[in-house]
Amino acid sequence: MSKPLHIGIAGLGTVGAETARIIQQSALLEQRCGRKLTLTAVSARDESRDRGFSMKNVAWHQNAADLASLKDVDVIVELIGGEDGVAKELVETALKNGKHVVTANKALIARHGLALAKTAEKQNVALAFEAAVAGGIPILKSIREGFAANTIKRVTGILNGTCNYILDQMEKTGKDFGGILAEAQKLGYAEADPTFDVDGIDTAHKLAILASLAYGVAPDLDSIHIEGIRNITFADIEYARQLGYRIKLLGTARPTEHGIEQRVHPTMVKETESLARVPDVFNAIALEGDAVGAALLQGRGAGAGPTASAVIADILDIARGNASAPFGVPASALTPLKPAPMETHHGAYYLRLAAIDKPGVLSAVSSSLSKEGISIEQMIQRGHAPGEPVQLVMITHPTVEAHMQAALKRIGELDSITEPPHVIRIKAAASNK
Amino acid sequence: MSKPLHIGIAGLGTVGAETARIIQQSALLEQRCGRKLTLTAVSARDESRDRGFSMKNVAWHQNAADLASLKDVDVIVELIGGEDGVAKELVETALKNGKHVVTANKALIARHGLALAKTAEKQNVALAFEAAVAGGIPILKSIREGFAANTIKRVTGILNGTCNYILDQMEKTGKDFGGILAEAQKLGYAEADPTFDVDGIDTAHKLAILASLAYGVAPDLDSIHIEGIRNITFADIEYARQLGYRIKLLGTARPTEHGIEQRVHPTMVKETESLARVPDVFNAIALEGDAVGAALLQGRGAGAGPTASAVIADILDIARGNASAPFGVPASALTPLKPAPMETHHGAYYLRLAAIDKPGVLSAVSSSLSKEGISIEQMIQRGHAPGEPVQLVMITHPTVEAHMQAALKRIGELDSITEPPHVIRIKAAASNK
Repeated sequence: MSKPLHIGIAGLGTVGAETARIIQQSALLEQRCGRKLTLTAVSARDESRDRGFSMKNVAWHQNAADLASLKDVDVIVELIGGEDGVAKELVETALKNGKHVVTANKALIARHGLALAKTAEKQNVALAFEAAVAGGIPILKSIREGFAANTIKRVTGILNGTCNYILDQMEKTGKDFGGILAEAQKLGYAEADPTFDVDGIDTAHKLAILASLAYGVAPDLDSIHIEGIRNITFADIEYARQLGYRIKLLGTARPTEHGIEQRVHPTMVKETESLARVPDVFNAIALEGDAVGAALLQGRGAGAGPTASAVIADILDIARGNASAPFGVPASALTPLKPAPMETHHGAYYLRLAAIDKPGVLSAVSSSLSKEGISIEQMIQRGHAPGEPVQLVMITHPTVEAHMQAALKRIGELDSITEPPHVIRIKAAASNK
Repeated sequence: MSKPLHIGIAGLGTVGAETARIIQQSALLEQRCGRKLTLTAVSARDESRDRGFSMKNVAWHQNAADLASLKDVDVIVELIGGEDGVAKELVETALKNGKHVVTANKALIARHGLALAKTAEKQNVALAFEAAVAGGIPILKSIREGFAANTIKRVTGILNGTCNYILDQMEKTGKDFGGILAEAQKLGYAEADPTFDVDGIDTAHKLAILASLAYGVAPDLDSIHIEGIRNITFADIEYARQLGYRIKLLGTARPTEHGIEQRVHPTMVKETESLARVPDVFNAIALEGDAVGAALLQGRGAGAGPTASAVIADILDIARGNASAPFGVPASALTPLKPAPMETHHGAYYLRLAAIDKPGVLSAVSSSLSKEGISIEQMIQRGHAPGEPVQLVMITHPTVEAHMQAALKRIGELDSITEPPHVIRIKAAASNK
């Protein structure tokens, strides 16, 4: 039996407290990694609160950064959050001091992951962040190890539980975005300031990490095309249903002839695909590998238990001495990501137009599309009350984003179109290999 | 850069050939594990056939067992199959000779896994078998490492693609078991002798391995309750649909107050659960952990690519020096499995009865059930042609298997019941933690 692994946790919110509790209370962990895990130090603002684990023989530190230089800490667990500030300082110093780091901090890894991985490799310590992407789903380990024989052709997923909950509830209740958001905030599923979630930023952080692992490139947050779900209406969800689709906020990365496409946007997914059925606050990642074909991993993306589960899985790997490179290949081998410009995106589109009901409208719209070489696959024209605009809903055949944007500009300028077109990209079917 | 890892493959069917091809052709593997993988020896019956990989510098051996003593082989890949005979001899000898072993042989591991794991641990070499269970899904790694912080409350899955294909096609086409089986055999999805698949034996092998990893017990094939899908009719599938369920062949293991329940049988799954939607030849495993909650992993369970992907993932772990215990905890720590007797199983049941349409039939049936304390939750009685028996379809509230069997005996003895009752167990809903 090797010597115990000493752990320091910075940040004692629900995840930190749950991590500490499991470390202290689970008899399984030692059997599963061959070493005793011992919590030796913690840091948080308020020392006095009872968080459900024992502070016996656990040192309290007011300053998180102090943990990085403690002699009796082998692994720092960073659960403070934020892409800079204390979290970054703690992680950097800990790595430089030869300590392993486990973090759930997606912003930090998406933004500074390459530099941190280089430091970790130089110091021959682990930098592990399974909890940063879809906590309850061991997707990073799966890409790095389980699917390591594959060239990945596409990775796409529901990476934000708040958005999935909102879209799911909109579909179930018929309410619009604002109403469901307010309810989600009451239930604690959405933050008071929901920007980070509903505008797709959180999804983008996770996508940058996934793309890095899948394609052997440095995480590149800035080249991600990001759209959130604020503009999705119940009408869109209902038309999608009629057309055989569901609307999900997907983060997608795939190599194309123009470079690597990274995009976060509401996406229409065929209802027969497993991704379309992911309910409630669940996350799911669909991956296509050249050998393995299509695979899907689904689970809870957030919450104390799932996140602590991922943090402890990383700690156990460290205890076992199992170390894969943080991003699957040595940091020095990660190449800069060559981004495919969004204008080169190729796919089908859903359009919803509000038009004055007069002769020639449909002809003007289809002419605007056909001038850009875009043809229509399906169309719905719904009856309407007198005086109200008519709703034209269509699905195009696959085309190029630049052509669609040009067509949308033309359409938006038509006199008979009464509001900006609603546009949702459609997910290409999974290859059936 | 460490020295190359030398690999010998025994068995060059489609999986062996694909494994060899990927090892020789993928430039990614070396980056991902930090070492060069070199195929040095192979064994199969027919030397002359072109299998799509290069035999340059690869030694040919007529006898697979010879690979076990080659000096220039670090890892033996066993793809011969069968729970005894050459495969067992090769694996045992290789381990004893201090060679790592990777195998896709579920029968061997389900039957002899404990003894082999003890040998491997004694010799300090790896025994890895990700490919033995649901090839395209890294489920063993996930249980052993990704979910290692969790106490597993239930593991249940679609573990046989042939059965899932047959049930899926029965639902889609309305044809009965025999017709679809014949088609599956033509397409190569089912063997000429389909016993192993359709009678649930293959699923049981995989379940024994999953249960061992999930619960820290020695694999115990003999205590598994096994029923296949031969008795499922399109009528059952159609009634299930009307009642909001789909029929899947599930392998399920869970700890109960009576011991560990291990059972393989056709199961009605609520159509809203992800498992109910797993299409075609895909496999999927649903797992519930105390920290992580519900998780689902879905992918291809068989075929050259998915199986080779799993075999190579295991090889890469060996190349990295990452070694978890084969069954998640040291073999010496695996306890004998205390099986829960099937009679103690607790759950709801679907019953379909053919009865002569005369007064008192329904009363006799419900009396037979209520004498055993079983109450009915839903019932369908379908109109019928004159002279034909009436179909009584019901779903019970949860009860105990022993009571249900006693009730079925009573019902079977009723004069008005014209054929043996059709019974399908209903999956308990996933905990919504």
